[in-house]
Amino acid sequence: MIDEQIWLVEDDRQNLKLYYRVKEILANRQSPFQQVNIIDTYDFGRCLVLDGVMQTTELDGYIYNEMISHVPVVCHPNPKKVLVIGGGDCGVVNELAKYAELEQIDMVEIDRVVVEECLDKLTGIAGKAAEDKRINFLFEDGVKHVQNKKDFYDIAIVDSSDPIGPAVELFSEEFYFNLKNALKKDGLMVCQSQSPIFNKDILKKTRENLKKHFPLVITYKTVVPSYPGGMWSFTLASLKYHPAEANYRRLSSDTKFINRDIFQSSMHLPNFMIKDLGLD
Amino acid sequence: MIDEQIWLVEDDRQNLKLYYRVKEILANRQSPFQQVNIIDTYDFGRCLVLDGVMQTTELDGYIYNEMISHVPVVCHPNPKKVLVIGGGDCGVVNELAKYAELEQIDMVEIDRVVVEECLDKLTGIAGKAAEDKRINFLFEDGVKHVQNKKDFYDIAIVDSSDPIGPAVELFSEEFYFNLKNALKKDGLMVCQSQSPIFNKDILKKTRENLKKHFPLVITYKTVVPSYPGGMWSFTLASLKYHPAEANYRRLSSDTKFINRDIFQSSMHLPNFMIKDLGLD
Repeated sequence: MIDEQIWLVEDDRQNLKLYYRVKEILANRQSPFQQVNIIDTYDFGRCLVLDGVMQTTELDGYIYNEMISHVPVVCHPNPKKVLVIGGGDCGVVNELAKYAELEQIDMVEIDRVVVEECLDKLTGIAGKAAEDKRINFLFEDGVKHVQNKKDFYDIAIVDSSDPIGPAVELFSEEFYFNLKNALKKDGLMVCQSQSPIFNKDILKKTRENLKKHFPLVITYKTVVPSYPGGMWSFTLASLKYHPAEANYRRLSSDTKFINRDIFQSSMHLPNFMIKDLGLD
Repeated sequence: MIDEQIWLVEDDRQNLKLYYRVKEILANRQSPFQQVNIIDTYDFGRCLVLDGVMQTTELDGYIYNEMISHVPVVCHPNPKKVLVIGGGDCGVVNELAKYAELEQIDMVEIDRVVVEECLDKLTGIAGKAAEDKRINFLFEDGVKHVQNKKDFYDIAIVDSSDPIGPAVELFSEEFYFNLKNALKKDGLMVCQSQSPIFNKDILKKTRENLKKHFPLVITYKTVVPSYPGGMWSFTLASLKYHPAEANYRRLSSDTKFINRDIFQSSMHLPNFMIKDLGLD
């Protein structure tokens, strides 16, 4: 335990700074891609911090991870092979492991250091993902991985960081085109599509890019407690299956946030989003 | 426009500080109760700040105000008289004014300075509340006001600040007992009941106190974008009417957030809340 006056200062946004009081710094490594920290905080438990920006916290990371993982699994009637792009905190693969019907979970994360540290020190999020033999940790570029797969996955989950720096290609139209081809003919994908309040343009652009390649594009929302902005969006793009026809009985009961009601209501958008996205 | 290096530092929480970059300080007055500031910020628009704590922002204040106002109005089939306790930013009365069927809206706010400044400088939230003849601004103690009313209001909305200092009595069992008596026999009330993540105890205690006096107590939720905690809870306590029987056609269409789907899904709670509140 170190001096209680250690704070993480998150000042990546020009007009807002957040100071989190730090209990202990558990990991502090420079990877080839970024500065990787795992810190223990007073208010949010253990947290993953990349280049000084809070990524996920033990207090509430399960909300994001459950919403990006369980929704696509339940939307697909018979998923076997799942691709995760990014997701270095291992929360997504830990959620996916709750589904016995999944046979292969390929997690493609460019930064091995993030995964090593999270599996070791962020177990409140990563759980026992390291022990599940269905999970393949592939430390490579997700963009290239997708280019080399054809007609292979039932589900793809794009758990990227913000569309700046290395993650920018994960928001491009070309990436979505390649991702569609990596999916089976009845496959579907989900990506995080940023804050519907602070990043309206990114959400709109994501939807436009996806619509060029997928017949069905649906944005859903959740809360993101440890982020000022309070709401987060995900966008599901599907080649065949519609979430309205999902079999909710397949939803795992081993969850802290999502249930049938939450699943269904996540698709209900407030008026400002309906207007912003041109859905009215 | 002043120096761009002016920041509002919100450090009321021990382990988290927020710095908001300030464009302009529009009001800075010491009232008999608190320091009242209205500031214009870069990320959140104009904001009301009381004793250094952010209360509401033009960027997203409508979410809170719509959820605490429209839900009770639509739950009651024939409301005429509404009481608002607190609500100094005038957002609640501005939302209520959208309902032609309301005949009398009593807003009891202890601090006249807050109301004056918000009506003048926070019009993105207060709207034209000052011009609506149905709204009576009563600058007095909400606790005492409620003691002196019997069988009078159809709806009461308790839009209090946090349960510290002057607002603490607004969370007491005695206050809810008096509030019940101020309502007509088929009346209902709503209060803000804090963050279901950071203030679980307050939410639970609020429900327990309300259950002693009201046959129907229902907690619903929303996002609260400009607050780390991301979720907020409201608790509705009703003497007769159940929200499941609400007539959604009465819902105002002049809203930025709430619609029929959002209304219904606000009552759907995530697993952790169901567990915390003993609803499973």
